[in-house]
Amino acid sequence: MIFLDNASTSQMSESVKNEYIKEAENFINPSASYSFALINKQKIENCKQRICKCLNVEYKENLIFTGSASEANNLAIFGSAKKGEEQYIFSSGEHLSVYNAAQELKNRGFNVQFCPLKPDGTMDLEVLNELLKSPTAFLSCIHVSNETGAINDIQKIGSMLKSKQKNAIFHVDGVQAFGKIDVNLSNGLVDLYTISAHKINGPKGIGALFVKNKAKLKPIIFGGGQEFGIRSGTENLPAIAGFALAAEEKMRALKTNFEYVLKLKNEFLKNIKREDIKLNSIETNSPYILSLSFVGVRGETLVRMCDDCGILIGTGSACSSKKGSLNRILQSMGKTKEENEGAIRISFSKDNTIEEIEKASKIILENFNNLKNMLS
Amino acid sequence: MIFLDNASTSQMSESVKNEYIKEAENFINPSASYSFALINKQKIENCKQRICKCLNVEYKENLIFTGSASEANNLAIFGSAKKGEEQYIFSSGEHLSVYNAAQELKNRGFNVQFCPLKPDGTMDLEVLNELLKSPTAFLSCIHVSNETGAINDIQKIGSMLKSKQKNAIFHVDGVQAFGKIDVNLSNGLVDLYTISAHKINGPKGIGALFVKNKAKLKPIIFGGGQEFGIRSGTENLPAIAGFALAAEEKMRALKTNFEYVLKLKNEFLKNIKREDIKLNSIETNSPYILSLSFVGVRGETLVRMCDDCGILIGTGSACSSKKGSLNRILQSMGKTKEENEGAIRISFSKDNTIEEIEKASKIILENFNNLKNMLS
Repeated sequence: MIFLDNASTSQMSESVKNEYIKEAENFINPSASYSFALINKQKIENCKQRICKCLNVEYKENLIFTGSASEANNLAIFGSAKKGEEQYIFSSGEHLSVYNAAQELKNRGFNVQFCPLKPDGTMDLEVLNELLKSPTAFLSCIHVSNETGAINDIQKIGSMLKSKQKNAIFHVDGVQAFGKIDVNLSNGLVDLYTISAHKINGPKGIGALFVKNKAKLKPIIFGGGQEFGIRSGTENLPAIAGFALAAEEKMRALKTNFEYVLKLKNEFLKNIKREDIKLNSIETNSPYILSLSFVGVRGETLVRMCDDCGILIGTGSACSSKKGSLNRILQSMGKTKEENEGAIRISFSKDNTIEEIEKASKIILENFNNLKNMLS
Repeated sequence: MIFLDNASTSQMSESVKNEYIKEAENFINPSASYSFALINKQKIENCKQRICKCLNVEYKENLIFTGSASEANNLAIFGSAKKGEEQYIFSSGEHLSVYNAAQELKNRGFNVQFCPLKPDGTMDLEVLNELLKSPTAFLSCIHVSNETGAINDIQKIGSMLKSKQKNAIFHVDGVQAFGKIDVNLSNGLVDLYTISAHKINGPKGIGALFVKNKAKLKPIIFGGGQEFGIRSGTENLPAIAGFALAAEEKMRALKTNFEYVLKLKNEFLKNIKREDIKLNSIETNSPYILSLSFVGVRGETLVRMCDDCGILIGTGSACSSKKGSLNRILQSMGKTKEENEGAIRISFSKDNTIEEIEKASKIILENFNNLKNMLS
């Protein structure tokens, strides 16, 4: 098996697994009142500090753990939503957990606007500029596209937003950025930032939302008042500890991994350079994610054939691969129906080898050729 | 350390820990489209079947995994809420994750009614009977009280509800019941039933909601459409597998554990039998949870003193132990201010020994005496 769907999830590293098991021994409920509970509470605080350090921001009770990044995105959106006429802007390139929450906001009568993408997969800032002339409560923008690896300039977008709508809330979904490219929230432009553990060799079932100002955020899960009253439910210390360790490991190796993965991507691109394979990702995108269109075939079929050969790839994100439907992100980038139908997503990790890339690109090409021959 | 706060959480059993680690190897995203993903999807289905068996109900895509039981309770409530005049009834004995969600419903303009408790800690069915004369959309009732161990007769309550309001939704919070007393959902009276893994030696960060009719439930977390579109977010297979195993282990030993824990409780009660220690739990309650009032002292102080002696107990549930405030459940049961202030909760598990119970009861009594002497 060659796993080239690393953006969908990743395996816990040995050290993270050990950390999980170690902290599972400290099973005491951190919200109880006795001293052993307080120790666990402090451990959680320590994990928050370490994760905030990875976000280049000082820890000031400004990180909320959730059960997933999808939950963190939903919390950011519904937790910020206030009845009124002001608009809620979303880029058209958002992950489904943002996009479908936006649709739900719309159903609830909110003024929801989508900002289209440019052909390179980033948010169209000229359109955003126009949109921002109207009163705006909230803007959500993905940091690194989970479909194409396109990187949105969140500092620039944050500045645009704050200069025009100074009270608007800026939410960034950083799931595919955190631990992979530099993330720096120190200048205070970003109000809410979503991260996930299982995308960076941490445990599943744990995400987090950086929250600059807790007072502005309402809970979506009510109860015992954990996480400063913003997210109730018994704290999952083993997963939290695993998350913090995974974040630190990624941060330490950020540059090395980035360069290595870039090499893998370039090797892959070199091997599949053909006129009927079109790139939906540009050179400056995150090297971790690559979207390609195999013109003349269905990406779905190609993915199935590769699966049979032990090459694991997807037509897009695991969350958005509805059979038969066109990829919403590629559509917003202006790709043709044919390009969209032939799209696949390859996503790399530090654990892939050059040999795997060579083998995978060869098999993908063979399958592409076979498929074309069958169809002609 | 003697742990007598087992209702707040529990330690993963060795077998559950091994299961978690084993399934962590199968890290592939179950929502991807390739064959390895389908295997993981099937594993999750298998876990659902096994858990449904523990609920004595046939599996028909009627179990939704969540990130916690608090989330499951919130999903049950907000997922069932529809604008209208019909009332949403909650027992006054609900866990904070139900109670605070009910308060939020009220804030959103819903017709929320609370049904008081009887002195024995169960819901007052005479009052319920009166309430049910008005159009009712929803009733939520805790199965086993997390504060007193009082058992609500959910079959009787379900029958009452359905005979008077046949379209009303019946939600039961079964967190302290599941794996500890018989739970049988086979007669179809219960529409929604909440369970938790970490209360039964399973992993933290995983809960579930039994959902008789998915069509009636809206999501509270939107996204990739996992869990039949009702709860988005990458599935947490390791925790799910641990949950299923923990449930089966509890189910197999249900009777043995029950009898053993009953023996522990009775031993404890025998040792602390005094006029100034009043029982807030009756004999037929779940033996796992015992609420006592140490008249004339503050439960909080007693708990602190016991903590110093290595005895871990709480004044109530970890989720509801707000410093200085009176216990809402005991208030609803009609306990005096003095009884309420002096309340502590002891909760047992199969892992406690008779020796621990003897030692703990002795130390608690000593501390009680010391405290009374200090105060007199």
